[in-house]
This record gives sequence, C-alpha cells and structure tokens, in this order.
Amino acid sequence: MTDRIANAQLRGKVMSADEAAALIPAGAQIGFGGFTGSGYPKELPKALAARITAAHEAGEDFTVNAFTGASTAPELDGVLADVNGIGLRTPYQSDPHMRAKINDGTSYYIDTHLSHSAQVVAEGFYGKLDFAVVEATRITEDGSIIPTSSVGNNKTYLDCAEKIIIEVNSWQSLDLEGMHDIWNGYLTPPNRPIIPITKPGNRIGDTFLTIDPNKVVAVIETNDPDRNTPFKPIDDDSRAIAGYLLDFYDNEVKHGRLPKNLLPLQSGVGNIPNAVLDGLLNSDLENLTSYTEVIQDGMVDLIDAGKLTVASATAFSLSPDYAHKMNDEAARYRNSIILRSQEISNHPEVIRRLGVLSCNGMIEADIYGNVNSTHVAGTRMMNGIGGSGDFTRNAYISAFVSPSIAKDGAISAITPMVSHVDHTEHDVMVIITEQGLADLRGLAPRQRAKKIIENCAHPDYRAQLTDYYEAALKASKAKHTPHDLARSYDFHRNFLENGTMKLS
Amino acid sequence: MTDRIANAQLRGKVMSADEAAALIPAGAQIGFGGFTGSGYPKELPKALAARITAAHEAGEDFTVNAFTGASTAPELDGVLADVNGIGLRTPYQSDPHMRAKINDGTSYYIDTHLSHSAQVVAEGFYGKLDFAVVEATRITEDGSIIPTSSVGNNKTYLDCAEKIIIEVNSWQSLDLEGMHDIWNGYLTPPNRPIIPITKPGNRIGDTFLTIDPNKVVAVIETNDPDRNTPFKPIDDDSRAIAGYLLDFYDNEVKHGRLPKNLLPLQSGVGNIPNAVLDGLLNSDLENLTSYTEVIQDGMVDLIDAGKLTVASATAFSLSPDYAHKMNDEAARYRNSIILRSQEISNHPEVIRRLGVLSCNGMIEADIYGNVNSTHVAGTRMMNGIGGSGDFTRNAYISAFVSPSIAKDGAISAITPMVSHVDHTEHDVMVIITEQGLADLRGLAPRQRAKKIIENCAHPDYRAQLTDYYEAALKASKAKHTPHDLARSYDFHRNFLENGTMKLS
Repeated sequence: MTDRIANAQLRGKVMSADEAAALIPAGAQIGFGGFTGSGYPKELPKALAARITAAHEAGEDFTVNAFTGASTAPELDGVLADVNGIGLRTPYQSDPHMRAKINDGTSYYIDTHLSHSAQVVAEGFYGKLDFAVVEATRITEDGSIIPTSSVGNNKTYLDCAEKIIIEVNSWQSLDLEGMHDIWNGYLTPPNRPIIPITKPGNRIGDTFLTIDPNKVVAVIETNDPDRNTPFKPIDDDSRAIAGYLLDFYDNEVKHGRLPKNLLPLQSGVGNIPNAVLDGLLNSDLENLTSYTEVIQDGMVDLIDAGKLTVASATAFSLSPDYAHKMNDEAARYRNSIILRSQEISNHPEVIRRLGVLSCNGMIEADIYGNVNSTHVAGTRMMNGIGGSGDFTRNAYISAFVSPSIAKDGAISAITPMVSHVDHTEHDVMVIITEQGLADLRGLAPRQRAKKIIENCAHPDYRAQLTDYYEAALKASKAKHTPHDLARSYDFHRNFLENGTMKLS
Repeated sequence: MTDRIANAQLRGKVMSADEAAALIPAGAQIGFGGFTGSGYPKELPKALAARITAAHEAGEDFTVNAFTGASTAPELDGVLADVNGIGLRTPYQSDPHMRAKINDGTSYYIDTHLSHSAQVVAEGFYGKLDFAVVEATRITEDGSIIPTSSVGNNKTYLDCAEKIIIEVNSWQSLDLEGMHDIWNGYLTPPNRPIIPITKPGNRIGDTFLTIDPNKVVAVIETNDPDRNTPFKPIDDDSRAIAGYLLDFYDNEVKHGRLPKNLLPLQSGVGNIPNAVLDGLLNSDLENLTSYTEVIQDGMVDLIDAGKLTVASATAFSLSPDYAHKMNDEAARYRNSIILRSQEISNHPEVIRRLGVLSCNGMIEADIYGNVNSTHVAGTRMMNGIGGSGDFTRNAYISAFVSPSIAKDGAISAITPMVSHVDHTEHDVMVIITEQGLADLRGLAPRQRAKKIIENCAHPDYRAQLTDYYEAALKASKAKHTPHDLARSYDFHRNFLENGTMKLS
C-alpha cells in the first residue's frame, strides 16, 4: 500500500474501484473533481460505467447526475456517456461522447457560469449531493486532502456531499503540495464575507482540503496521467489575431489607459490564446500577472522567461511535455502559481477589482457585437459558456477572438444575428479575427455594425453582411438596432440546408 | 441670493441658465446628474436647447453628447431631443422624445450596464468629459456639494469633467443632507480597493461631494420639482404576480434556502414591483432590508410600517405625494435610507456578497429562459438594460416579471425566441406572469420550455408555443436547444405584418 495515505482511518477504506462503484445507487447526484482535463477521478467512473452497463443489461434504469468543475476526459465523461449513464450533466463539458449524448437528447445539460456552479449546489438549489468523488496526490495524517492538478469545485462538493470517495493518484507529483489555496471562509448569504484578494498573488487559505473523515466511504489507489493534449503549432491566423490584440494593448498603454505591465491577464484555452501568450513572450513587456481560470503551456513559458510574476487559476491545461515538466518541477513553480477554488478564480468581485484583461474564443459574433460561445446554429451545444461570462462581464477590457471563417469558408464567424447569445452587446468590447480588430467601446449599434463588417469579417462575406445591414436599415421601422427578422438567420439556414453560409 | 450657497468663490459664479449655456460649445461631452427622474439639472438643459435651436436656425451644426446617471425628465432628455441636440446618449433613458430620436436614427445610443457607466468614463474610454452639470440642495462653506434626490454618476462626472456647472435647487429639502454616502476610495485598476460593504446599511464615505472649486464655471439657482409621476393603483395582474413571488420566497424559507427575513431585496421600478412591495407590507415578514437602485413609494411604506430596517439605493423614484413627504421628513428617513453612487449601488461585488433577491420587469422571455429587456421586435429601443444585468447576474435568486400578454392580447410576453437578448439562459432563475411562476433552477433547456409554456404563457398562446416547440424538436437535428430558425421569429414577424402575434 502506498505511503500517500497517511491517515489510518482512511487507509482502512482502501478498496478497488469496482467495490467503490458498487456503493453508488442509481439516481445518485455526484460531484466529481476535475477541470479542463486535470485532476479528475480516473478509475471510479470507469467502474461505475461497468456497473451501469450491467444494470442496463439486466433491464434496470441506471443513470447518475454528474456535477464537475468543468470539462473532464474520456475516462469520466466519455465512459459514462457511452453507456447512457448520465441523466443530468453540469456545469461544463467538452467531451465528444458526452456532447453527442447532450445533442441527441439522451442527457440533460445545464450550461452554467463557472462562478455560479459551486454556489447553486451549496445553496441547495439542486437538492442533496450524494457523493463527492475527488482526486488527491496524498492524504495527510489528520485526514486532509492535498489536491492534484486542479481545485475546481472540490471544496464545495466535499463540504456538501453525504459521502466521499477519494482517488489517490501516484502519477501526480507530491510537490504540488503548497501550490493550492483553499479558502474556507466563503459562505452563503447573509454571512458571505469580503474576499480578501487585492493582488493576483494573494494567498488567503490553506494548502489542503479539510474533510469530515467519517463521510469517506472509499479510497482508491490509482496511477494514471491527466488528459493532456498537445497544442497545435501556432498558425498564421492565430499569430495575426495575437498581434492585433497586443498592438491594441500597446496603444492603450501609450494613451495612459493601461499600466505599462498591463493588468492581470485572463485567457481562454486553445490555440489563439496560446499564440497571445507566445506574443507576450516575444514582446518587451515585463512584470505581467495573470488572474485566470486555466494555466496552459504559454504561461509556463512566460514564468520561465521571468516575464510573468504570478499566475492564479483553478487548474492546469498542459500538453504532455509540459505536464511532465510541471510534475518534475512543481516545487519551483508553486512559488509563482496558485490554484484556487473556481468560485474564487472566477469571482466577479475579484475580477472587477483587479481589472482583468479577458480574452476568450467564440463560435460567432453578430454585426451588433453579441457573441455566441456555445451553440452551433442555435441548437447544437459545443462545450459551454465556462468562465467566459464571469470574466467578460467584469473585465477592464473584454475581447473575443476567432478566425473569421471555418470549414474552408463555409462558415462565417461574423453573422447578421447570432443564433444564440451568451455575451450581450452590453458586455463585448473588442472583437478580433485574422482580418483585424474592432474596438466597440463607445460605439452605438449602427456604428458597431460598420466597424465589425469592415475590420473583422472575411472578404468573402463582407458584401453579403453589408447587404443584410443595408436591407435591414431599410426594412426596419426602428433604426436603433436595424434587423429584418425574416432574413436575420439566412446565413445559418443556408448552412443547414446547403452546407454553406454563402448565399448565392 | 439664496443662503444655500455658503462658499464665497462659488457665490461669485452665480449666473442665469442662459449665461451658463453660452459656455457650452457644440460637440461638448456633458455628464449630467439625474437618475429615474430625480436630482437632474432642470434649467441648464432648457437654456442649452434654446442655444442649440438658435445655432441650427443659423445653419450651424450643434449637438452634445449626453451622459447621465439613468433616466431624466422632459426638462433634460425631452428638450434636448426635441431640438435634435443629442449626438450620443448613454447609459440609460426612458423619455418618449429621446426614445423617438434614438429609434428614428437621429441620436446614437449606447445602452450600458449601470454599474459600468461610471468606470468607462473614468477609464477614459469615451475621451475627455468637458462638463459635469449636477444638482445640489446646497453648497457648503468649503465648496462641497450636498446632492439632492439621486447620486447616480455625479461623483465620477465631477471628478472627470474639465468644467462644472451646479444647479442649486431650493425645491429640494436641506434635510436630505446626511442621507448620501459618497465613497471617494473607489479607483481604477490596478489600485482598486475592496468595497467595505457587508450589510446594506453600512456607510463607508462622506455625506457630500468634494469638488475642485476652480473647475466650477457657473452656478444656477433653481426652484423646480423633480419629475415625480404617480403609480397606478395595483391591478389584478400585478397583485397575482406579486403573490406568486411571495409564495415562492415563503417556500424557500420553509426549505431552509432563505433566511426568515429573506435577503436584501432589489426591485425594478414600476407597478409590478410596487405590488410586490405592497404584498410584503401585508405579509408577516419582518426585519427586511433592501440593496437596490431606486426607492419607490412601496419601500417608504415598508419603512413607515417598521418592516424594512434599511434601504440602500442611488435615487428616489416617488409619486408626487411621496416626494413631498420625503422632502418634509427627510431628517427622519435619512436614518434608514442611504443613497450611494450607482457604481456602488449596482456593484457585482456587493450584490453577490449580500445575496440580493432581484426582481425586474421584461419585454419578453423565450421558452428557454432568455430575456429581452430592451428591444421591441429586436429593433426598437424602449428604455435600456439599466441595472437589471448587474442585479440579475449576481443575485442569489433572480426573477423576471411581466403580464403574459400586452396590447389586448396582440403580444405574448412568452415567445419561441426572444428578438434581443439582455439576460441569457445562464442568468435567469425565475419567470413570473399573472398565469404563474416557472422556477428554472436546475432545469435544462427542454425542461424549461415545458415549464415556461405551462406555467407562464397566456392560454391564448400556449397551443402555438407548444406547436413551435414540438416542430422545432422534430426539425432540429440537435436536441439540446431545439429551434427551427425558419420559424423562430414567426410571432414577431406576424406582429409586425398583421399587428398580432396570434398566428392564424
């Protein structure tokens, strides 16, 4: 038995994943650890999937409701979705198998602001949480849990759940201990205190999760890697988008609207944000900070280069090479990286106080600056809103980025009217594609339309966007936000019918 | 000369409104005081409108950009709109003449979250603010300003503007002094501090606005009432909606999800919110508090009845009788009423910390829980989003209220797809019409659709909403949020073409 379980009582709860899964009844509400493929339980979900399959083969109904931090991995979302094992999924996912079950109607999905996801459970709006299933790098002598590569909603799920199952994963570095900041002071109203963070680097809590050991019904020993996927090499579009954003920041500094070392950076996950980080690496900016959700490769490079003094997040999302480096050198990185609960990493209070510069991907923006982050053609869920709303609404400057076209030009990321709104015109300040940047601050809807079409739309779509705008201006009796509701979804309808947004 | 101007230097700046208006050049950016028809300047705008008219008659271009707290009155928005005097208007308005100019394309309008409206000016995103024009009940010996019936964005506009014009209005009670709480500690990032409010009644600042007297170019003496409009008697629909909301709160208390004295109440302006306040008056609830934007008649009644211990807001919106009572008895009411800057009254940090219960009106909600607060048929601006987004996103429980039909049944407040989104499906917890209440917490989109149609839609529209939902479920390849984009705006299109949302 591993020496990673120092508490005698919990050592006595060690069992196989199958034995632990047998403790979970049909209909259970389970709060799983895990955020962006980091720090999720890896063996219990597989065993649970097997149990569900056996039940289904015996003709019994068996689903569970799965709460997480954010996205997990094939070993959690994937295996449970594959066996039609998930009744309700929330607050975020990005697994292809899970997504398919959401979109074919098998599973319900509640797409939630990540800053809300803990509090709605703590407030009791979902009813009783039966189980918390979390990953630990070790269990201390007094029964506390040292988290692994994410914190997510672990604290809330451990506090609220009736029963606890812990996976102790010896793949995760013991040196992660000391990197986490677990604040136990956050309560539900009317007793909610001030969050005492005024700088991204403030530590306000413990380095461990405190639990009631009597709630632990199983401890499972594992040795499994996180789902770490490599980033693609930076392509020309991503580099162009990153360049526009950095030039924009540079201009804000020149005009005295941003400090020389900018403000704390938030960055969504993906290739464009990684290109932005690469651009920062090659700039002469210094003393940068980050208050964000996820730490990806580019931030590690910025720390190594001495350009980023501190990064606060709730999880890692690293390529396999960088994950190994993090495991090897966690003792060094924990001086400049803090992993917090996601309700703190994503909290409006802290984000607006610090004045975060947000940068997130999108599916589409419309000519008036509304952004769709979640639904293809208004109906098909991609991943979810994640933390993009928490950061965008409260950012000092909010930006959305996307290539201007997708699927070899069949899809335009700029449309007359987005098919689903996740970020309203009131919240979106800057839109960037490889074509250029539209600074929407201080512009009314008709002014935004011209700028977005001119600066951001792909040349192949500019004429038909202008056609729409001009026709809408004529057709629309009210001119504040001109629209022709008979034509506002022509792009999307043509795509659904003919496979392209190009109108012939 | 009135004894309300105790400062010698500023007494020397007294002049007529016409003389003051002559100081304002074409193209000026002006930050006016005023919020919900309270505490706005009343003479300078009229004189400025005359100046603009003279310029236009002489063939000269003359417009100004008008920033306010929120809505003002005919003597400000109305007179300037009537002479085509406003180039850009922000952050909120509700004046019929101003609205007409926005919708006919004469004036640009930037509809802004009220918590954002001060900071975007302070951050310099709009360029230089040339003038601040505010109302005072008196000017102190050292040149400080005692505000009147609103605070709004006065502090930021006075701080940022190059020149200041003060209207000293002797209609306003001198006893308002002591009611305001002006916090000078709020700065732009990276120096933004914690807002030290943990209870609605906390006072954290001064009772006066500190200004640089050298910036004052004119002081105007006035004696004019605020725009105070009577509330309509509470009708059956409003009473029914209020009843559903109070029953819902009652049930939350019973289940331990709300304290016995609820949580701080926020309430939009209008007849339904006033009916909710009346319902509270007739309930056995006690020790209520309010952290809101606007204080209306019903809250005054609750204070008088001893049921509301404290109300924090940024402005009054009272009927004429109640405005007189407030003026007469301000010395008493200032023990339980606090007027703050709107970036504090509407701040996400404080709202989420306190766990406010929000209740706001809407134009329409769709079957998936998206809410339109601003645009009729997606194009025509009504008023603006105001503070509804600040409160809704950060509320402990967010509710939207509306009668289920309007215009004698020609309009349904529940539609297949809202024509403009101000509050996304991620933010809306409860929808209430006179038909009933839909508690959307913990429901996925398809579940929400059934509940909203069943509980909230008017019987005349239930069948055609169900038809749409079922057809969309069939037509839509993806079932997460079923939509048929060819039909999603049939209700609105039929209304535009045939004057009714009823499909024949």
